[in-house]
Amino acid sequence: MKDSEFIRGDVPMTKEEIRTIALSKLELSTHDSLMDIGAGTGSVSIEAALQLTKGNVLAIEHKKEAVDLILENKEKHHTNNLEVVMAKAPDGMENIAEYNKFFIGGSGGNLNDILELIKNKAPQKSIVVVTAIVLDTMIEVYHFFKDNNYDFELIQVGVNKIDTTKKVAMLTAQNPIFILTGKVK
Amino acid sequence: MKDSEFIRGDVPMTKEEIRTIALSKLELSTHDSLMDIGAGTGSVSIEAALQLTKGNVLAIEHKKEAVDLILENKEKHHTNNLEVVMAKAPDGMENIAEYNKFFIGGSGGNLNDILELIKNKAPQKSIVVVTAIVLDTMIEVYHFFKDNNYDFELIQVGVNKIDTTKKVAMLTAQNPIFILTGKVK
Amino acid sequence: MKDSEFIRGDVPMTKEEIRTIALSKLELSTHDSLMDIGAGTGSVSIEAALQLTKGNVLAIEHKKEAVDLILENKEKHHTNNLEVVMAKAPDGMENIAEYNKFFIGGSGGNLNDILELIKNKAPQKSIVVVTAIVLDTMIEVYHFFKDNNYDFELIQVGVNKIDTTKKVAMLTAQNPIFILTGKVK
Amino acid sequence: MKDSEFIRGDVPMTKEEIRTIALSKLELSTHDSLMDIGAGTGSVSIEAALQLTKGNVLAIEHKKEAVDLILENKEKHHTNNLEVVMAKAPDGMENIAEYNKFFIGGSGGNLNDILELIKNKAPQKSIVVVTAIVLDTMIEVYHFFKDNNYDFELIQVGVNKIDTTKKVAMLTAQNPIFILTGKVK
Repeated sequence: MKDSEFIRGDVPMTKEEIRTIALSKLELSTHDSLMDIGAGTGSVSIEAALQLTKGNVLAIEHKKEAVDLILENKEKHHTNNLEVVMAKAPDGMENIAEYNKFFIGGSGGNLNDILELIKNKAPQKSIVVVTAIVLDTMIEVYHFFKDNNYDFELIQVGVNKIDTTKKVAMLTAQNPIFILTGKVK
Repeated sequence: MKDSEFIRGDVPMTKEEIRTIALSKLELSTHDSLMDIGAGTGSVSIEAALQLTKGNVLAIEHKKEAVDLILENKEKHHTNNLEVVMAKAPDGMENIAEYNKFFIGGSGGNLNDILELIKNKAPQKSIVVVTAIVLDTMIEVYHFFKDNNYDFELIQVGVNKIDTTKKVAMLTAQNPIFILTGKVK
Repeated sequence: MKDSEFIRGDVPMTKEEIRTIALSKLELSTHDSLMDIGAGTGSVSIEAALQLTKGNVLAIEHKKEAVDLILENKEKHHTNNLEVVMAKAPDGMENIAEYNKFFIGGSGGNLNDILELIKNKAPQKSIVVVTAIVLDTMIEVYHFFKDNNYDFELIQVGVNKIDTTKKVAMLTAQNPIFILTGKVK
Repeated sequence: MKDSEFIRGDVPMTKEEIRTIALSKLELSTHDSLMDIGAGTGSVSIEAALQLTKGNVLAIEHKKEAVDLILENKEKHHTNNLEVVMAKAPDGMENIAEYNKFFIGGSGGNLNDILELIKNKAPQKSIVVVTAIVLDTMIEVYHFFKDNNYDFELIQVGVNKIDTTKKVAMLTAQNPIFILTGKVK
C-alpha cells in the first residue's frame, strides 16, 4: 500500500518500501495474530489487518494523537479485525500468549522489557520484527537476539528516490533503516 | 515470501526484499491480471498468483531451463491461476489487452519494443514495474517514461545484510537495484 | 579538509567525503594545472591549490555571490596559485591547453559543450572528474565517456552520518553522488 | 592513490575511496606522526608517509606475509619516513607518546586495549580513525567514544562501481564501511 493511502497528521510513518519489507519479514499467514507495538499512524497494523483475513491485529500506542489517527485509518480501510489500545508497552501486552507475530516500530524506552516479555510469554517460533533508525536501538536488538541465541536476520535498507514533481531529477536519500527479525525459541 | 521457498537452479532470482517492493509497486488487487515478462525462476509470478485470488498471471520466459523451474515452482505452490509461455517477449504478449499489470524483470534486448507495445495495447492506467540492475536499462526506461509523459516513480534500493551463519557479523552489500514504476496513459 | 574550514554563505558545497574522493580521482601531482568549472564556494579549488605546490588552479564560476566566497576562501587559506574568473563555462576556458586536470561540479546547462571543448583542446591523458547529483547529468557524462571511447570510471557514493550533537544517534543519509572520471584520448 | 599502485598479494586492502576518506579524517599536517595499527598491505601507511613530508609513520602488523608486502610497497614508493614493526598491537606501540595520529584498520581482537592505551598515553587532541567492516567492531568503538566522552564522528560509506571492463554496465556494491573518528581528551 502506498503512503498516500494513510491519514497521517504529524505522526512519523514508516515509509512504504520499509513497511512492505518489514511486513514480508513477519511471514504473515491468514490466521496469524499480530501485535503492533508503537503503532504510530497504524500503517503496519492496517496493511497487516487486510492480509490477516482470518486473523487479527492489536495496535498498542501511547500517544493520544497517534491513537486517533489509527482509529481514523481503521475506519477508512474497514479493518474490523484491528483493535487499538492506548498504552505504553509492555502495558497493553497482557494477552501476549495469543499472538504469534510482533512488530516493534517504537518502544518508548522499554525495548528490553518488551523483548524479554515476548521471549518469556509468546508462543515458540513467534516472529519479532524491529525497525530501527536509531543506532542504539539496532545495537540493543542485535545483542538481545545474539545473547538469546535466536535464529535472526539483520538487514539495513537504503532507498533513494527521484521526486518527479521537481524540475530536475535528483536521487534523494531516505535515511537508512535497520530491520531485525528474530524467532522466539 | 522468502527466497528459500523457491526452487531456483542456476537461474538468477530477484532477492526477496526487492521482489516484495516491486510487488507492492504493482498495487495488486485480487482481480488483477499480471504479465511477468522475463519471469526467470517465476518468484514474482508465484507470489503475485497467490495474491491474485480472483485474477491470473502469465509468465513469459524464453529460456527452457527457467521455464522448467517456473513449472516446478508452480506445482510446489499450487498456483493454478499461473500460466507459463515459452517465448521471447514481445512474443507471447498477444493477449495484452486483458492484462492491467506488467512486471519486467528481463527483456532480452527488446525493452523498448515491449514498453511500446504496453503503451499502445494495454488498458489505460495499467501499471508497469521494471527492475534494473544494468545502468543502461534504467536509463532506457527512465527516458521512455519521461518522453511519454508517464506519471512515474524511480527508486534505487540498496540492502546490506549480515550473514548470521558466519563467525563475524559483516554487513554485506547486495548490488543496488533500480525499480521504475510507470502508469500507462 | 573539513567542511568547516570553508566560508560558505548560502552557496551549496560538495560535502567533504565526496570532495576528498573527487580530488583523489584527479590524481593530482604537485605540477598539475586544474580547471575547476562551476567552482561554487571554491572548496575543491582551495584544497587542490594547497596540494599543487608547483602547479596552479583556475576557478570558473558565474555567480557573483559564489565568486566572492571563493575570493574570501582564497584569502583565508593563502592560496596564491589560485586564480578566479567570473564567467559561465565554456567562457573562461580559453587557456585550456595549459591545463591537464578538470573538475566539473556545475555546468549551468553547458555540460556537453564543456566536455567537447576538453576533448578537443585539452592535452591527451588529461583527467576529467564530474560530480553529479542530478540523474540526467550522470547520464549525459556516462554517454559522453562511452561514445568517445574514454577510459572511464563511474561510481556512486552514499554517506550516512550520525549527528553527535543530537540526543539520539540516528544514521542520517546524505544524498548519493555519482562521480565520473574520464581520461582524454 | 589508486589501489593499483600498491603491491597486494592476498592481503585484504582498504579500497581507495575508503582509504582516501579515512586519511582525510586524520587531518594530516606535514609534521604529524602516524601509527598505522593493523597495517595490512601498508596502503594507508604509504599514502600517509607521502603526505607527511616532515613527519613519519610507524606501521604495526603481525602477519609476516603482510609485513613483507609493506616493505615491498615502501621500497616501491620510496617512503623512508615509514618504519615497519612486526608485532601484534598493543605490542609495538611503546613510543606512543611521540605519535598524534592513529589509524586502526585491524586489531586482532585487542581493540579495547589499543583504544585504552591511546586514551592514556597519546597526546591530548590526538586523532584516532577506525575503519570497521564488522558490526561488532563498529559497536565497540562507538561505545568507547561515547563512554569516554570523546568528540567523535561516525559515518558509513557505501560505494557502488561500474566495472567498465564488462559488457554490461552494472552498478556493483562494495560492502559498506563504518569510519569512526575520535579525538583524545
